[in-house]
Amino acid sequence: MSRLPSFKGVIAATLTPSKGYVDRIPAYYDFLRTAGVKGFFILGTWGEGPRHGAEHRMRVAEKAVESTTSSELAIVHVGSSDMDTVRTLLRHANEIGASAAAVIAPYYYRPDTETLLRYYRVLAESSEIPLLVYNIPSKQGYSISSNTLTAVLEEVGNVWGVKDSSGDPATGVALVRKFRGRKFVAIGADELITFAFTIGANGVVSGIASVFPEMVVGLQRALEQGEMNRALELQHLINEASNLLSSIGVEYETQRSVLRIRGVDIGPPPDPVRTLREDELTRLKEGVAGILERLVY
Amino acid sequence: MSRLPSFKGVIAATLTPSKGYVDRIPAYYDFLRTAGVKGFFILGTWGEGPRHGAEHRMRVAEKAVESTTSSELAIVHVGSSDMDTVRTLLRHANEIGASAAAVIAPYYYRPDTETLLRYYRVLAESSEIPLLVYNIPSKQGYSISSNTLTAVLEEVGNVWGVKDSSGDPATGVALVRKFRGRKFVAIGADELITFAFTIGANGVVSGIASVFPEMVVGLQRALEQGEMNRALELQHLINEASNLLSSIGVEYETQRSVLRIRGVDIGPPPDPVRTLREDELTRLKEGVAGILERLVY
Amino acid sequence: MSRLPSFKGVIAATLTPSKGYVDRIPAYYDFLRTAGVKGFFILGTWGEGPRHGAEHRMRVAEKAVESTTSSELAIVHVGSSDMDTVRTLLRHANEIGASAAAVIAPYYYRPDTETLLRYYRVLAESSEIPLLVYNIPSKQGYSISSNTLTAVLEEVGNVWGVKDSSGDPATGVALVRKFRGRKFVAIGADELITFAFTIGANGVVSGIASVFPEMVVGLQRALEQGEMNRALELQHLINEASNLLSSIGVEYETQRSVLRIRGVDIGPPPDPVRTLREDELTRLKEGVAGILERLVY
Amino acid sequence: MSRLPSFKGVIAATLTPSKGYVDRIPAYYDFLRTAGVKGFFILGTWGEGPRHGAEHRMRVAEKAVESTTSSELAIVHVGSSDMDTVRTLLRHANEIGASAAAVIAPYYYRPDTETLLRYYRVLAESSEIPLLVYNIPSKQGYSISSNTLTAVLEEVGNVWGVKDSSGDPATGVALVRKFRGRKFVAIGADELITFAFTIGANGVVSGIASVFPEMVVGLQRALEQGEMNRALELQHLINEASNLLSSIGVEYETQRSVLRIRGVDIGPPPDPVRTLREDELTRLKEGVAGILERLVY
Repeated sequence: MSRLPSFKGVIAATLTPSKGYVDRIPAYYDFLRTAGVKGFFILGTWGEGPRHGAEHRMRVAEKAVESTTSSELAIVHVGSSDMDTVRTLLRHANEIGASAAAVIAPYYYRPDTETLLRYYRVLAESSEIPLLVYNIPSKQGYSISSNTLTAVLEEVGNVWGVKDSSGDPATGVALVRKFRGRKFVAIGADELITFAFTIGANGVVSGIASVFPEMVVGLQRALEQGEMNRALELQHLINEASNLLSSIGVEYETQRSVLRIRGVDIGPPPDPVRTLREDELTRLKEGVAGILERLVY
Repeated sequence: MSRLPSFKGVIAATLTPSKGYVDRIPAYYDFLRTAGVKGFFILGTWGEGPRHGAEHRMRVAEKAVESTTSSELAIVHVGSSDMDTVRTLLRHANEIGASAAAVIAPYYYRPDTETLLRYYRVLAESSEIPLLVYNIPSKQGYSISSNTLTAVLEEVGNVWGVKDSSGDPATGVALVRKFRGRKFVAIGADELITFAFTIGANGVVSGIASVFPEMVVGLQRALEQGEMNRALELQHLINEASNLLSSIGVEYETQRSVLRIRGVDIGPPPDPVRTLREDELTRLKEGVAGILERLVY
Repeated sequence: MSRLPSFKGVIAATLTPSKGYVDRIPAYYDFLRTAGVKGFFILGTWGEGPRHGAEHRMRVAEKAVESTTSSELAIVHVGSSDMDTVRTLLRHANEIGASAAAVIAPYYYRPDTETLLRYYRVLAESSEIPLLVYNIPSKQGYSISSNTLTAVLEEVGNVWGVKDSSGDPATGVALVRKFRGRKFVAIGADELITFAFTIGANGVVSGIASVFPEMVVGLQRALEQGEMNRALELQHLINEASNLLSSIGVEYETQRSVLRIRGVDIGPPPDPVRTLREDELTRLKEGVAGILERLVY
Repeated sequence: MSRLPSFKGVIAATLTPSKGYVDRIPAYYDFLRTAGVKGFFILGTWGEGPRHGAEHRMRVAEKAVESTTSSELAIVHVGSSDMDTVRTLLRHANEIGASAAAVIAPYYYRPDTETLLRYYRVLAESSEIPLLVYNIPSKQGYSISSNTLTAVLEEVGNVWGVKDSSGDPATGVALVRKFRGRKFVAIGADELITFAFTIGANGVVSGIASVFPEMVVGLQRALEQGEMNRALELQHLINEASNLLSSIGVEYETQRSVLRIRGVDIGPPPDPVRTLREDELTRLKEGVAGILERLVY
């Protein structure tokens, strides 16, 4: 955990292979690592954790953690709508030596503040590895105020940080200002990567970095070197990549298809998600080519 | 299944006891039955299915089905965000002889139309008991058009009907018009109970009926007898009961507390949901008393 | 005003001719009247009141009121985002002998309850003709609770009723139950026409009735005669007509085009609204023909 | 217009005095100017333009433009839901020598892309002074894609820029990247001020700057001097000020009350907006004092 507070960098919200394709993870992670990715967010939203059963999630988590080095972050997301599954996965994340366990706020049902605090307290108490609070209103179905997030981080022991995917810049500012140097604060919204690094967040958990890692790492470097023009160009390219991915195909087989186009095959979609049609693949290939071309410049 | 298409009546979206309290189900169901409830929707949204692990869901489903008679509907909801759990629960619902298995459309992730059709097809093919499509946009995170719902009901074998909790009256009209006499169409929105029976739906799946069953059954009877004034009064009371429940406490411990106030104790909330505070209980008691008083008139 | 409380029927949310075409109103109103329309809602949302300047609104209102008979309702909508314009138009509606003046709740800015009450009080005090509160959250930008609506109707003198376009069935029930026989309650949501007449509202203010009046009047009659199958068929057709209108062209030139297709030409769109393209007109004609065909059956 | 493209700085979204209090403007503008404000956005959303009649808007615009110097921006917002009023106000803004005329995209009704382009083209052609496109989805009732915004800026002559109040960082990036050095791009979202200056926008149109100008100007300066800690502190204070203003009282009398507390009295609210209650004023005073205290530090 000592490496956590001082972490600075890009964490990829890695995609997940389906059953039978877990052995594709090491090559995939090498692809990300080569591009400069320093952290791996495993089985989150882009990683389709909530779509997979506990058994497969554990196999994926094992292989993923195994595929990281001690200087990298390997954060395993263990959230679920049911508490028994969360407990099972959290225990397992401890056993396999994950850097931390991320837990989405309860989804499907809406907790009040006290229930939310109890939720994280109960989990934190049963874990040796630290917890990362994962706030993503679009999936939870409700917002959490920055005051409530702050209370969770302050009052619950063994919570070392937060991944905020609210898309709300004010929440990011409140968290960084309050916890800088004390807790890990990551922004999980691709359109706010420039903002995240500017205000001094520890990093970003980026979906785009799972398929175009060089773009997000490049943006971080451009900002470090004060090349604002290049940063603006890259942030715009990231935004366009987001639009491309959401305008073709189906979650998250489109993303897997981008990896395939780029030479990294992590296997077919999980049942019952369909594969992309020929015309969709053609458009996607053109879109990816256009993005990679502009990336070089 | 023969009893299904001709069913007319009130289905309660029954609440669920926590672990260790499953034996409270028979008495609870007697309370509902005495009030005129003819069907039991088990482990749905009000029944906190998505909050419980598969093990507890199976224990609850067993006891619940066991607690119904052959002339009643015992619909077990088996939906989850992960497909493995859905399969496990669907198999179990078949084994215990549920009347049907309800399956919420995929939540957390958004399927396109083809993936949605594949989803229900894969499940329907592995089930002897018929499926009920459960559409609840507020929990799924996306809407399904009535055209797509119609396609699922038409094209997937072994789907005998739909519970529509969209709250959209146009969807209800489209479904009843298209499928009357051929498929089971239930409306799952308490503010639309009068509407549902008026347009000729097979029934309602009602949350309010799980705690105030006499109100919803009374509304159905008033409509059958053409007592529109009484129907209006009861629909209004149902709407006020909904407001009461959503303005105090926390989901769905407030609902369990109403049952307790009414003399039916199905046990404490599941971890980590908090219990109600004294002041909340006082307000809830007053609210419940006020409603029951007006119910008599 | 004596005719108001006992009114039962269909009020068309009439379309508005552009400048220079006001003389088209009498023929248009005849078209509606022939189909059984008994009330005219003038310059509301479908009537593009907020799009036109005060001068044109007054010319339209004059001609429209003049084109109605004493046994019909001629309700002039005088709402605007600016209070000076509302006052001017309200004075004018009084001068021309409108049955009542409808006033949308303040839009663009959000009033609190006290400001909302003051708003209607100030206006009601300066008017001889009665006011109709017009609640349409999708345009106002905020919801008004049924308690607040009730307070406005109870506490402000000279308010004779409400047009509720919230689309919320619970609000309709609360209003009808509270004010039946005392205030005029109209529902302004085309997908709730069956519901409105079932619960005993005074009537509906219907957009679809402005272009397909026979459909809405036919639905009312089917309900009066207890022909529920025919009512369901017509409600469904109304819903499909709504979908057709919102899927082609641009607000509210598409609606004007339907009238033109049906032989009633109220003139071109107001600047800067575009006309429909050829391909759009073709699709619209087909859609209208399909609807009229099914209307006969 | 020559001063426009190179402008860099803080534009206050100035508040508006009610009828009879227009002579309060010079002192108010001096207050803003002293704090470092370089531009004045007159009669926009915070300036309650859409709430006031054309007559008062013209009196305010005259006095406001008169109260600015030739090195400052005096942008008059002339938007309305009705086209006649927009034309009248645009002509007047030309007559009084405003730097530019801002025009909100049509509100209440939703234009399609072609109608939107026609809208700005018609207006731009009738104006000598340049137009500023004002995009504020929360008030318009619909979003405009950054591609459509780009088309308006590219294709319509005499449009010199845009004020984007979408709150969407991706739109800001797209606009700055595309138009830097060619068009004026201002961000109109207080939680994105740090972001706006970081990516190189020309400036911000800030509501908070209309009551706490030193905070926003201070943030700009901190960023220029690379004092990121101070910038973060100020951005957070701005966000807290926003929360304070939206949690007490009523739009925009709360804002006027803050000015009054700070010694700048621009008069009472316009009819029918209520004044603040004593307890609200007490809380507001405490909130303002707390903010000003932290501002000094």
